[in-house]
Amino acid sequence: MKKILVIHGPNLNLLGEREPGVYGSDTFESINNEIVERAKANSFECDVFQSNHEGAIIDKLHEARNMYDGVVLNAGAYTHYSYAIRDAISAIKIPVVEVHMSNIHTREEFRHISVISPVCVGQIAGFGKASYLLGVDALAEIL
Amino acid sequence: MKKILVIHGPNLNLLGEREPGVYGSDTFESINNEIVERAKANSFECDVFQSNHEGAIIDKLHEARNMYDGVVLNAGAYTHYSYAIRDAISAIKIPVVEVHMSNIHTREEFRHISVISPVCVGQIAGFGKASYLLGVDALAEIL
Amino acid sequence: MKKILVIHGPNLNLLGEREPGVYGSDTFESINNEIVERAKANSFECDVFQSNHEGAIIDKLHEARNMYDGVVLNAGAYTHYSYAIRDAISAIKIPVVEVHMSNIHTREEFRHISVISPVCVGQIAGFGKASYLLGVDALAEIL
Amino acid sequence: MKKILVIHGPNLNLLGEREPGVYGSDTFESINNEIVERAKANSFECDVFQSNHEGAIIDKLHEARNMYDGVVLNAGAYTHYSYAIRDAISAIKIPVVEVHMSNIHTREEFRHISVISPVCVGQIAGFGKASYLLGVDALAEIL
Amino acid sequence: MKKILVIHGPNLNLLGEREPGVYGSDTFESINNEIVERAKANSFECDVFQSNHEGAIIDKLHEARNMYDGVVLNAGAYTHYSYAIRDAISAIKIPVVEVHMSNIHTREEFRHISVISPVCVGQIAGFGKASYLLGVDALAEIL
Amino acid sequence: MKKILVIHGPNLNLLGEREPGVYGSDTFESINNEIVERAKANSFECDVFQSNHEGAIIDKLHEARNMYDGVVLNAGAYTHYSYAIRDAISAIKIPVVEVHMSNIHTREEFRHISVISPVCVGQIAGFGKASYLLGVDALAEIL
Amino acid sequence: MKKILVIHGPNLNLLGEREPGVYGSDTFESINNEIVERAKANSFECDVFQSNHEGAIIDKLHEARNMYDGVVLNAGAYTHYSYAIRDAISAIKIPVVEVHMSNIHTREEFRHISVISPVCVGQIAGFGKASYLLGVDALAEIL
Amino acid sequence: MKKILVIHGPNLNLLGEREPGVYGSDTFESINNEIVERAKANSFECDVFQSNHEGAIIDKLHEARNMYDGVVLNAGAYTHYSYAIRDAISAIKIPVVEVHMSNIHTREEFRHISVISPVCVGQIAGFGKASYLLGVDALAEIL
Amino acid sequence: MKKILVIHGPNLNLLGEREPGVYGSDTFESINNEIVERAKANSFECDVFQSNHEGAIIDKLHEARNMYDGVVLNAGAYTHYSYAIRDAISAIKIPVVEVHMSNIHTREEFRHISVISPVCVGQIAGFGKASYLLGVDALAEIL
Amino acid sequence: MKKILVIHGPNLNLLGEREPGVYGSDTFESINNEIVERAKANSFECDVFQSNHEGAIIDKLHEARNMYDGVVLNAGAYTHYSYAIRDAISAIKIPVVEVHMSNIHTREEFRHISVISPVCVGQIAGFGKASYLLGVDALAEIL
Amino acid sequence: MKKILVIHGPNLNLLGEREPGVYGSDTFESINNEIVERAKANSFECDVFQSNHEGAIIDKLHEARNMYDGVVLNAGAYTHYSYAIRDAISAIKIPVVEVHMSNIHTREEFRHISVISPVCVGQIAGFGKASYLLGVDALAEIL
Amino acid sequence: MKKILVIHGPNLNLLGEREPGVYGSDTFESINNEIVERAKANSFECDVFQSNHEGAIIDKLHEARNMYDGVVLNAGAYTHYSYAIRDAISAIKIPVVEVHMSNIHTREEFRHISVISPVCVGQIAGFGKASYLLGVDALAEIL
Repeated sequence: MKKILVIHGPNLNLLGEREPGVYGSDTFESINNEIVERAKANSFECDVFQSNHEGAIIDKLHEARNMYDGVVLNAGAYTHYSYAIRDAISAIKIPVVEVHMSNIHTREEFRHISVISPVCVGQIAGFGKASYLLGVDALAEIL
Repeated sequence: MKKILVIHGPNLNLLGEREPGVYGSDTFESINNEIVERAKANSFECDVFQSNHEGAIIDKLHEARNMYDGVVLNAGAYTHYSYAIRDAISAIKIPVVEVHMSNIHTREEFRHISVISPVCVGQIAGFGKASYLLGVDALAEIL
Repeated sequence: MKKILVIHGPNLNLLGEREPGVYGSDTFESINNEIVERAKANSFECDVFQSNHEGAIIDKLHEARNMYDGVVLNAGAYTHYSYAIRDAISAIKIPVVEVHMSNIHTREEFRHISVISPVCVGQIAGFGKASYLLGVDALAEIL
Repeated sequence: MKKILVIHGPNLNLLGEREPGVYGSDTFESINNEIVERAKANSFECDVFQSNHEGAIIDKLHEARNMYDGVVLNAGAYTHYSYAIRDAISAIKIPVVEVHMSNIHTREEFRHISVISPVCVGQIAGFGKASYLLGVDALAEIL
Repeated sequence: MKKILVIHGPNLNLLGEREPGVYGSDTFESINNEIVERAKANSFECDVFQSNHEGAIIDKLHEARNMYDGVVLNAGAYTHYSYAIRDAISAIKIPVVEVHMSNIHTREEFRHISVISPVCVGQIAGFGKASYLLGVDALAEIL
Repeated sequence: MKKILVIHGPNLNLLGEREPGVYGSDTFESINNEIVERAKANSFECDVFQSNHEGAIIDKLHEARNMYDGVVLNAGAYTHYSYAIRDAISAIKIPVVEVHMSNIHTREEFRHISVISPVCVGQIAGFGKASYLLGVDALAEIL
Repeated sequence: MKKILVIHGPNLNLLGEREPGVYGSDTFESINNEIVERAKANSFECDVFQSNHEGAIIDKLHEARNMYDGVVLNAGAYTHYSYAIRDAISAIKIPVVEVHMSNIHTREEFRHISVISPVCVGQIAGFGKASYLLGVDALAEIL
Repeated sequence: MKKILVIHGPNLNLLGEREPGVYGSDTFESINNEIVERAKANSFECDVFQSNHEGAIIDKLHEARNMYDGVVLNAGAYTHYSYAIRDAISAIKIPVVEVHMSNIHTREEFRHISVISPVCVGQIAGFGKASYLLGVDALAEIL
Repeated sequence: MKKILVIHGPNLNLLGEREPGVYGSDTFESINNEIVERAKANSFECDVFQSNHEGAIIDKLHEARNMYDGVVLNAGAYTHYSYAIRDAISAIKIPVVEVHMSNIHTREEFRHISVISPVCVGQIAGFGKASYLLGVDALAEIL
Repeated sequence: MKKILVIHGPNLNLLGEREPGVYGSDTFESINNEIVERAKANSFECDVFQSNHEGAIIDKLHEARNMYDGVVLNAGAYTHYSYAIRDAISAIKIPVVEVHMSNIHTREEFRHISVISPVCVGQIAGFGKASYLLGVDALAEIL
Repeated sequence: MKKILVIHGPNLNLLGEREPGVYGSDTFESINNEIVERAKANSFECDVFQSNHEGAIIDKLHEARNMYDGVVLNAGAYTHYSYAIRDAISAIKIPVVEVHMSNIHTREEFRHISVISPVCVGQIAGFGKASYLLGVDALAEIL
Repeated sequence: MKKILVIHGPNLNLLGEREPGVYGSDTFESINNEIVERAKANSFECDVFQSNHEGAIIDKLHEARNMYDGVVLNAGAYTHYSYAIRDAISAIKIPVVEVHMSNIHTREEFRHISVISPVCVGQIAGFGKASYLLGVDALAEIL
């Protein structure tokens, strides 16, 4: 059985509470449950990880290289400036799918640029919690 | 039964023949067949349209506003400069999902900017022909 | 009797239906009627043309050079990038007045630049449907 | 009877004498007479004011907020950098129509940007002295 | 007893009337009274000056150099382009504290840059009328 | 016998009439005759095509991929923004030579950039109608 | 009794030792004592936190949302690029006042931009250790 | 006998007192005396004018057009943004020589650009008070 | 008999040895022989000059103004920054044709800009050694 | 005996495994051994530290200020945006030598800028693992 | 007796012949004679040097440091990009006055920037051949 | 025995005399002696060359390709704009190490960019004369 990892970056632990107009009112827990369900439906084992620390996300990506077959990554605000996470993604060989809940192109200018896109397989953005679910489906398409 | 429209922009009629290293070797016809299959699996009726003419894509989007429930759009190179297509998308009220076969962020600089993203529901890019299939799934999530 | 041509660019056929907060709720037909009325009041014969196709607008401008004394042009989104329409305007010798219904300077950044302004006689923007009427008046001032 | 104010910014007092190739050879006085005539034809009372002082134009706009129903403003070179005049326009509630005699888009680059456009109702540019007359007509359309 | 000067730049005379959503509904007079009170509480004599004229603000700053121990300056829109006021501040030797009622960083782009900041002691922005009061306190801290 | 295609983009149908100071006074027909002559001198069969429609030029380039050995293309104003034509050129495998009658570097700034140059074999610009003739010669050199 | 939190970002633990020409020679401890004193004078309970870790500052801001009524934040160099801290500030609902000891506008160019300003209530900069004290006062004005 | 006018812009009235490291310690009066002496040596009558008001400098330039044969202008900080003074200079027909005491290219970036240079006969900068004297000599060369 | 000069700029003496993937493997000598042949075929006398020294190229261009009827110039890397060579070209009255062996638009960004283009008659680029031959032909067309 | 510290930033723990085409196939451990050897040859004691956490690198630099005589720092991707590490370097007084294994100027654009260079003694880049060895030698030259 | 050197940069040897509309019709020789006359009137010995070679100008500036008291330099087009000449000027200790015959601010954009200005004492531009004469006078003022 | 060449670019002949605060007070000769010593210690034969002429440096690099095994190059100010030297370096096959005595990143903005870095093996900057010595060592590491 294949195994995937879903990584949530900074501030995503507050989902449901933080700016519900942008991110919806489902809680972090209920979204994670839906993600794990969708993974099962695709015959994946699935772990979920969240951290506000850039370094901890890099450590986790390193660790993932020998333990998972693919990663769904919502790097939160680090998306826009963490070249260190970018380097971690290209240092490991498993595919990483970039997801965003909101349509980053309709928000502030700094959110229009993703420094990790060039090293990810593909991006999915703008479908709320469904972005994660489509991200899991995308891993199913390419694994 | 809901009805969706898939629009292919310029040069996509050459799929299978054009730069197979970037776009894969499936033909335009076989990809369209897979799209229609996936639509059926989501209980959608599905029409497919291709044109190299910016104006024809706008005409089609106008026509779609009373005939379809959603659109999956790969605007090809018009993605990067057609403010007229952008205006057409915001003039109609049905949701439009932007898709790209390639990861536009790993290609030439001019492909990094999408002028239609701000008026689309969301974007899916980088999964080859599966981008279209995930685009159909995405419409299923939001309709 | 002098003869003028009013050209509407892409998406303007949806006037009255499209974003009424920006463009008002008068229909395309009723606005055209008012334009023809105003033209008559200025002793002009007046034809009206609309197309979503950049090439069709260029063809029409070429045709106009021997058939009309002046043009009122709302090039819609083509205003912001169609150097081909710009070249068509400078290739013909009759005066072209640029009009916009909305105040393009209070909208998205890409609408602040008009690539056709440098080859038009003048611009009128921000007065809703009255922009067309003032455009007809402006032709009366200069013809 | 409605009352309007026409404000001329810096250097416009030299009209007729200053660069006649750009601004025509009508004198400042004769143009003002035509403006007042056109105002009467639209059933407006009309005052005319000119100053080379940015602060004096701001003072006048403040004063106008209780005394006039609308303003036609040619801010001259202040158009391109006076954020203080811009603030004055948005601080008062009566409509302000921006006019320019020349087509500012065919002249030096710095004249392509108007910092007051975003707070004016609309702009009219490029018709020589007729820009003022169309500006008065525009107030008639919107008041 | 030390003596301070509070200078209000263009359009601030309309406080209470102008855009109350941004600037609050306290009148210019009542705010000035609070400022003078706060100055007294800090054992300062305090004069208040307002002008819409860039040159008049410069004249006042020159005059201040021999008459006051410090200045609280809200330069209004001149903040963003008046290098002449900047030069006046560096020409005099008394400390000048820059204040803004609104958080200039959440407003239009042109308000994000202050050309006078580099020659002021410090800046206080975003606290409504309290920005002035904190500005007076700041002078108390440094004098 | 080898076969080549010469494509003229928008507004070039007005050659001889349009801005003779820039483009010379030879008519479109007489230039085409000279081009066909020169092709014959190089032992080429030669067809000529003109359109103001971006989409029609793309359609023609697609069609050319199985019918011609090389293309001489003057894309007119589309040179400066049509990424769709650019994609069409790279999608087909026959060589395309970019030509311009005028020296695009001595004209307006927007004409200094060609988005199609990176996918053409080479460029020839500035020799009036002889640019086409040298373009035909260039195909002879490389075919 | 209201409770506030003062957060010091990276390198501020070296205050008194680090570049005394810029930051003064008061030690980190003595400044914290003055801050707590000022808080008491405003009838606030006050905690102080310092970390060089971006993630730890985000964790602390999250924790603060249920435990404090307001925050005074000197984000140090993170001010200039941490969109993750910015998101943390907008995710929590209590007011955050941005402070800087030095006048960031007289230093290196990269210090002129604050990515957190748009989500803070206001900024105070340039008054040395007094910036913190005025920040505490500012919370007193708005709470 | 020819007559010239020397105009000093904002803050130059403080010469001798203001930043002597940059501007020297000669007083405004003594420099004006030297200027008048040099004018006499060139057989010029010479008037001197100073104002901190942009509008007053424009008024003076207008007045000069019928009263003087040439102008030496140190526009101070207005040099860098006053398009209104620029327009005044091009509106009058007498030659204007731009002078600066300091070498504006070794100072802050904003001082590197002069918006009035393109409409002046020439510039002289960097020679302290001698810049004015050379400016008078320059008028002698060209009148 | 007309006389032309072909100038090779820096590093072109290494042709055949330097980056054969870009420049081909014909030697400098053999290419010069072909150039002289082509010149003869056009009834030109032809001299060839190469230097790595910017100043030597300028000296040669000066000398050419009385000795040749036209110049074919490959300025090598000086193309991209030598305003001094540009000035030399505009100082002399004979026509200069700019040539490049490679398609400079598919190479590094700095090679996309030619500072000499605006003063040359026309450009030919991308045809390998044939660029020189077409350059000689181009002189034949215009002389 | 002098003591030095070598700091490896994010992702460098994967050396030997990560992109061997760029970084070589020596393992992290073997490189560290060579570094320590070279240090000994220069009569230095040498410690080695690696972390993926920006904050941990800052903590280590603070700690180093009393324990080491110099630092060799490869900040990895943090080189390009960590102003916090930059501040840590300037806060401590011991010399820091910046090293990079790859020639950062031949890689992606974002790697061309080092925000820590201005506060380091010098840089050494492009010599693979030998960059570290030369970095140790450089400390020997300056200590 | 003091000794000065006048250096003419590239293409200035063609004065009188080159673009007389810009540079006048006096020959290089006659202008040099006037320069030497003016030097004598200021009691200077004066040598004149011209070269089209950047390196030769640098060599001459080095040589000048022990042989002359000051330099008048018209660096021609090298003004706009020769950082090597700039370094030569700051390496020597004698004052260098920058002169230009034309008003560089009314010509092409690339002529608006002088890379040598920051290391020259001052600049004089726009007075034709009199720029040199005023340059000699300027040396007299500062030596 | 291997043979290396050290090339000094413009103005470096003045070492010891030129800006000793930046470049130290060792003379050009003594530094060259140290370089030759260090080369010997690495078992290299070593020649030294200096020129202020860009073309002469190119000529020398060409000549070096058959005579030396490696080059240490301090291109002085040419570093920042000489694309011709860059082309010379990539035309030859021997390794070139770029060195700078000063830390170019702490100096003027134009010195932050090196146009030759992308074609050199590596760079060493900031260690004064030791930069040359480390450059020789670096050649030893890679040869």
